Amino acid sequence: MPAARDAAYDIPEGFQAAGVACGLKRDGRLDLALIASDRPCAAAGLFTTNRVKAAPVLYDQAILAAPGARIRAVIANTGSANACTGDDGLARTQRTAGQVAQALGCSPAEVLALSTGVIGLPLALEPFERGIPALHAQLSPEGWPVAAEAIMTTDTRPKLASLRHPDGFTIIGIAKGAGMIAPNMATMLAVIATDAQVDAALLGRALRRAADASFNRIVVDGDMSTNDSLIALANGASGVAVTDEDALVEALAAVCVPLAQAIVRDGEGATKFVTLHVTGAADEASAVQVARTIASSALVKTAFYGADPNWGRILCAAGYSGVDVRPDRMALWLLDSAQQPMIQLVAGGQPEDYDESAAIALMQGPAWGMRLDLGRGAASTWVWTCDLSHEYVSINGHYRT
Amino acid sequence: MPAARDAAYDIPEGFQAAGVACGLKRDGRLDLALIASDRPCAAAGLFTTNRVKAAPVLYDQAILAAPGARIRAVIANTGSANACTGDDGLARTQRTAGQVAQALGCSPAEVLALSTGVIGLPLALEPFERGIPALHAQLSPEGWPVAAEAIMTTDTRPKLASLRHPDGFTIIGIAKGAGMIAPNMATMLAVIATDAQVDAALLGRALRRAADASFNRIVVDGDMSTNDSLIALANGASGVAVTDEDALVEALAAVCVPLAQAIVRDGEGATKFVTLHVTGAADEASAVQVARTIASSALVKTAFYGADPNWGRILCAAGYSGVDVRPDRMALWLLDSAQQPMIQLVAGGQPEDYDESAAIALMQGPAWGMRLDLGRGAASTWVWTCDLSHEYVSINGHYRT
Repeated sequence: MPAARDAAYDIPEGFQAAGVACGLKRDGRLDLALIASDRPCAAAGLFTTNRVKAAPVLYDQAILAAPGARIRAVIANTGSANACTGDDGLARTQRTAGQVAQALGCSPAEVLALSTGVIGLPLALEPFERGIPALHAQLSPEGWPVAAEAIMTTDTRPKLASLRHPDGFTIIGIAKGAGMIAPNMATMLAVIATDAQVDAALLGRALRRAADASFNRIVVDGDMSTNDSLIALANGASGVAVTDEDALVEALAAVCVPLAQAIVRDGEGATKFVTLHVTGAADEASAVQVARTIASSALVKTAFYGADPNWGRILCAAGYSGVDVRPDRMALWLLDSAQQPMIQLVAGGQPEDYDESAAIALMQGPAWGMRLDLGRGAASTWVWTCDLSHEYVSINGHYRT
Repeated sequence: MPAARDAAYDIPEGFQAAGVACGLKRDGRLDLALIASDRPCAAAGLFTTNRVKAAPVLYDQAILAAPGARIRAVIANTGSANACTGDDGLARTQRTAGQVAQALGCSPAEVLALSTGVIGLPLALEPFERGIPALHAQLSPEGWPVAAEAIMTTDTRPKLASLRHPDGFTIIGIAKGAGMIAPNMATMLAVIATDAQVDAALLGRALRRAADASFNRIVVDGDMSTNDSLIALANGASGVAVTDEDALVEALAAVCVPLAQAIVRDGEGATKFVTLHVTGAADEASAVQVARTIASSALVKTAFYGADPNWGRILCAAGYSGVDVRPDRMALWLLDSAQQPMIQLVAGGQPEDYDESAAIALMQGPAWGMRLDLGRGAASTWVWTCDLSHEYVSINGHYRT
């Protein structure tokens, strides 16, 4: 039984959720989820920047681009990404959205769709015909953990987070991740729902900022999916209006950050959760570029896996990041899980006389950090990443066939 | 016994080579190589574009930048990269070059140095003091295979190629590669020597073009080393002057291409040699960017490992390459080892009705290709790459500690 089903969480008013097994996954696991609101929601979405966009991404972008768009439901399936499926794929997404609208008695233009799974398979429609009535029958305010489970692919755990805000509204979020995670836009599927009353434009701005502090900071393997989508819905059922952007960003981030971290912790084959700080950069863009390059390096990630304080690979990756780094200004620390500096590995671009066995022992832990200071300015950033393990290769060498 | 020692090869006049075990590697394997010419050579070098450059790279760049630089010898060590070692590292490289100059009776400014191995270790000087006289004593025109063996790190095979040109000159080359191979400049250590008489400026131009057709087309793991160096020496001992740039490029490439391919075939943990063609690009830069992105994708490379014709990952990687690709124009073929199209996987961005088991069978072979046509223009390129295996993770998770 996945942990999330039993975990305590807060439920926003006016939303229901459900998950069923409709036959999209061959092994009978849950594969179809529905989130529905009893009233129209202000909505915002962030989507993959991949040029190859799945049909549901194109579909949702069109829906959300309509002036005054209001959303009632999100249907999410696993088993098929409905990507590289052309006009027929788009028609199939439209059809499933239409079925949801019919079941809920709303307009098809009020339904968003998410898909994840293998690229290029035609989206089978029969499972939806069976699954949507079943979802409708099972919709419940307590259905969130089941919905979180139904969007899992190679995830080993459902991902759910919630916030009961002192101002009187609630936010809940579910996400799926695992592989193909690069820090460039909403790098997974996630749905965030709140009963706060929020203007759609404000929701969009705040969602982007919250994503920049959460989902856009995670790196599993550097690949970027065709389907990455982050949807936020606000139905106003709490009667609490939120108009302050900073406060909304903070509230959204309180849900998005644990979801993003859960995606990295559950990264394909991941055995270590590493927070990589880059400080002393000339500007934030440089810091981000260095951090992402290091976090995407196969050599760095295998060293993490082997608990090898091979700081040379870190400096080397910074060196080819494209940023004008100066080797002799770089300093590097190992941090504990609370992000406190424990061992300085490098100063002035050269190794410190550190305790190798202590460094290895620290890196053998499941969660720790590194800080690379570039000595070039005051800008900084951080990303969350994981190691590259034998299990990652096993999962992705044999995912499909 | 490594194959290269027994293989037939052609030897340029006036050069000698040797390799010894001087104690830089703990396990007693060969670790120091010397290439020497009996007369000064015109020389050219291409070096890593990493901002973190090893001491020998900085040293060689300074030597070769001197007007009228002539080179007599190259000393190459494994076991220590002499990178991230600061001014002291540079002084140690200078010292070893001086020892070689003393042994050969030439100027220190006529000696280049190459290092490979772990980053950040101070270069131990005692092994050089023992090794350089031993190398000098063993120098021989037949020493090339031993020198090729002495520059190996995680390579499993020495890499040597030669060309006896009909015009009467000879080119030989040795290289080491294995990991940290990205297609951006000379991505390994390699020394090319010819007894042709060539102007240094011409040699430099031709070497760059030959590298663009060989070493700059290989991708193992997308990392770029601090030490990558490609050196070419021309001593004129054959008495044959080469003045035609195209002819020289062709001759150099005849040696560089098999060396580059050997590096990929011997990539860390590699089980498959894949030639990835990108055609139909709007311009060559776009083709290169798409090809490198695909070849660096962990998801693509693990699919290669699993012999999984998971074409969706190819299209997906093209989609996030940063190039303005159009999904619905993409076509993809599996090619046999002679680069002939065998199975079309994708047309118009969508899957063809291909024989899955035939595709898997083809991909289970040790060498095959793929062609991705972008449908956007007439430009094309190709790269050589390999898969990402369990063995890669084993090698790099436990390389140093």
